[in-house]
Amino acid sequence: MRARNLAVVLGAIHRSGPHTRAALAEMTGLTKTTVSSLVSDLIEAGAVAESGAVRGGERGRPGVAVSLSGDRVATLGLEINIDYLAACVVDLTRAVRLRRTRPADNRNSDPVDILGSLRDLVKETTAEAELAGLRIIGAALAVPGTVEGEVLRNAPHLGWRDVRVPDLVDLPFAIDNEANLAALGELWFGSRETDFLYVSGEIGIGAGLVVDGTLFRGTFGLAGELGHVVVVPDGPACRCGGRGCLEVYAGQDALLGALPSVSELVTRLESGEQRALEACGRAGHALGVALTSAVHLLDPGRIVLGGIYAPLFPWLEGPVAEGLGTRLGHMRGTPPALVVSGTGADAAVLGAAGLIIQQVIAEPAQMLGL
Amino acid sequence: MRARNLAVVLGAIHRSGPHTRAALAEMTGLTKTTVSSLVSDLIEAGAVAESGAVRGGERGRPGVAVSLSGDRVATLGLEINIDYLAACVVDLTRAVRLRRTRPADNRNSDPVDILGSLRDLVKETTAEAELAGLRIIGAALAVPGTVEGEVLRNAPHLGWRDVRVPDLVDLPFAIDNEANLAALGELWFGSRETDFLYVSGEIGIGAGLVVDGTLFRGTFGLAGELGHVVVVPDGPACRCGGRGCLEVYAGQDALLGALPSVSELVTRLESGEQRALEACGRAGHALGVALTSAVHLLDPGRIVLGGIYAPLFPWLEGPVAEGLGTRLGHMRGTPPALVVSGTGADAAVLGAAGLIIQQVIAEPAQMLGL
Repeated sequence: MRARNLAVVLGAIHRSGPHTRAALAEMTGLTKTTVSSLVSDLIEAGAVAESGAVRGGERGRPGVAVSLSGDRVATLGLEINIDYLAACVVDLTRAVRLRRTRPADNRNSDPVDILGSLRDLVKETTAEAELAGLRIIGAALAVPGTVEGEVLRNAPHLGWRDVRVPDLVDLPFAIDNEANLAALGELWFGSRETDFLYVSGEIGIGAGLVVDGTLFRGTFGLAGELGHVVVVPDGPACRCGGRGCLEVYAGQDALLGALPSVSELVTRLESGEQRALEACGRAGHALGVALTSAVHLLDPGRIVLGGIYAPLFPWLEGPVAEGLGTRLGHMRGTPPALVVSGTGADAAVLGAAGLIIQQVIAEPAQMLGL
Repeated sequence: MRARNLAVVLGAIHRSGPHTRAALAEMTGLTKTTVSSLVSDLIEAGAVAESGAVRGGERGRPGVAVSLSGDRVATLGLEINIDYLAACVVDLTRAVRLRRTRPADNRNSDPVDILGSLRDLVKETTAEAELAGLRIIGAALAVPGTVEGEVLRNAPHLGWRDVRVPDLVDLPFAIDNEANLAALGELWFGSRETDFLYVSGEIGIGAGLVVDGTLFRGTFGLAGELGHVVVVPDGPACRCGGRGCLEVYAGQDALLGALPSVSELVTRLESGEQRALEACGRAGHALGVALTSAVHLLDPGRIVLGGIYAPLFPWLEGPVAEGLGTRLGHMRGTPPALVVSGTGADAAVLGAAGLIIQQVIAEPAQMLGL
């Protein structure tokens, strides 16, 4: 009961704080004595802090308000990308306190090596966070593949299958698909829109649908595999075993061709190089086809292009919007708006840290040891 | 508060009844006096009835149990299909009490005419239900198109756009997409599996995704438009304004060609007629492509083929399963199971009636005037 009340009070502060203890009692239906005792525990744990006087209460007397505190409780976001490892530390107010990225070539890699490097990164980042007075209370890991529980089932570009990822910290630990976490990153750290399909352009292509602020995961947690939507039924073989998947036409490898990096591609697009423009046109056309199918099936509020599609947005927007406009026909009034992600390459690692913040807000007693 | 407690008690009886009043008090945390009073009201309204003695309670004394009653409260399901109008009456125990179908050619029809015929059907069906001692307390209408609130936005095969459907009864009334309601019909009246994608093969093709017993509707209630998933990007023009949509290859018109009916097609398939077999093969191939995209995006527990696909299942199963098996690749362990619907052509009209039953269970005070 106390655990539930802690969640009720912290939830109210999180949603609409700062609030005085009296206002919290009124909002939650708990007695002022109970609220005061719960708030004391939350202050003790570093989750909330007194944040100065506010006008409040029925009689207009000023009171001391409490709000979420960014001073102590923090969570760790981690990411294994094909091209890099990343970590970030986010405090309870969702302020980003640290980011670290280590370039790496993780294609067809040995899980033991990569998880070893990641463990080093965790140690360094945690030590740095502690120096800043932060206490890491949980971590989540974004991976470019399908996840079931703690098992990374299939990450074709890493070349990993059925890898059981060990807890990388002696703390609450979660592992989730990169596109799912990137969608949550966009929700919590990006535009803060609550209804969108986040499209994660990477070496693989994934998507995460957010409806009314909640991530849609499907039945087994495998929803949103946009990269393997069929664009051309008898098209070229895809790494997944299928044919003519979106990834074949619009994944990073198809876009870059022989170019070494996305920034190199952007440079060439800016100088109007024909081959680069054609690669973007092809990718945009294929995205228009696959997103038409996705809009018909998922009915997103808007479409957010993220990952490498963010820097390429000026060249992708036209063909994608045209594809959606002509193909969606008159089944709906207008196609969903097409916008660029605000979180860039950090979406997934931020979403990972945010996932644990969400758990703290939902279950403070358990997550903070209260 | 009383309204909420009525819902709590009726919900408990619905989920796991019959129960004695004592057991209900224990389950809900309400006092025995309160439960007895609520049960009296529900008996008075005809929603529950005493159903004999059960062994129960801590001390093992037998008690009189109450369960949902099918004797008085009923709801009306309605459907405007391209080829017919339908109505059914379902009682509170979800037993189907009446079904009526009127063949009609509703293509490019005048909404005023069709809604007039439907109103006649409502009157007849309601009168018949009353003769059986049933009291219709609400109705829902299934339509082959996209719905926003009370407006049928677009039903391409009816030729209707932006038609405001008037309340057909002076009672709680809802209108919803045919495939959504058919999925709910399958959930409540079919296999009672809780995780599946129901595929509604009609003149148009729709789908309804059920995850953990709940229909996924998307952001604007327009999700599941499987018929307009792109199968061939530069394929033939579709009625929706797009190109190469699934409906072009696997809708009823494509399957029948010049044949007058699905049963005629089945007769020819049974006699091994080449042209009929080829039409089914083409449709099955296209379904395999579109369902591959749907599985990647929606992650259904299983796939249920309904509507005209139910009688054609023996000829569709092979090509669809093969398409899914080869195309889904190694992104997931095995493709979702492919099964035939148990509710046949009645799925949508049953789902419509069931939708109102669900409202009665959720809000008995309001729906039963308590």
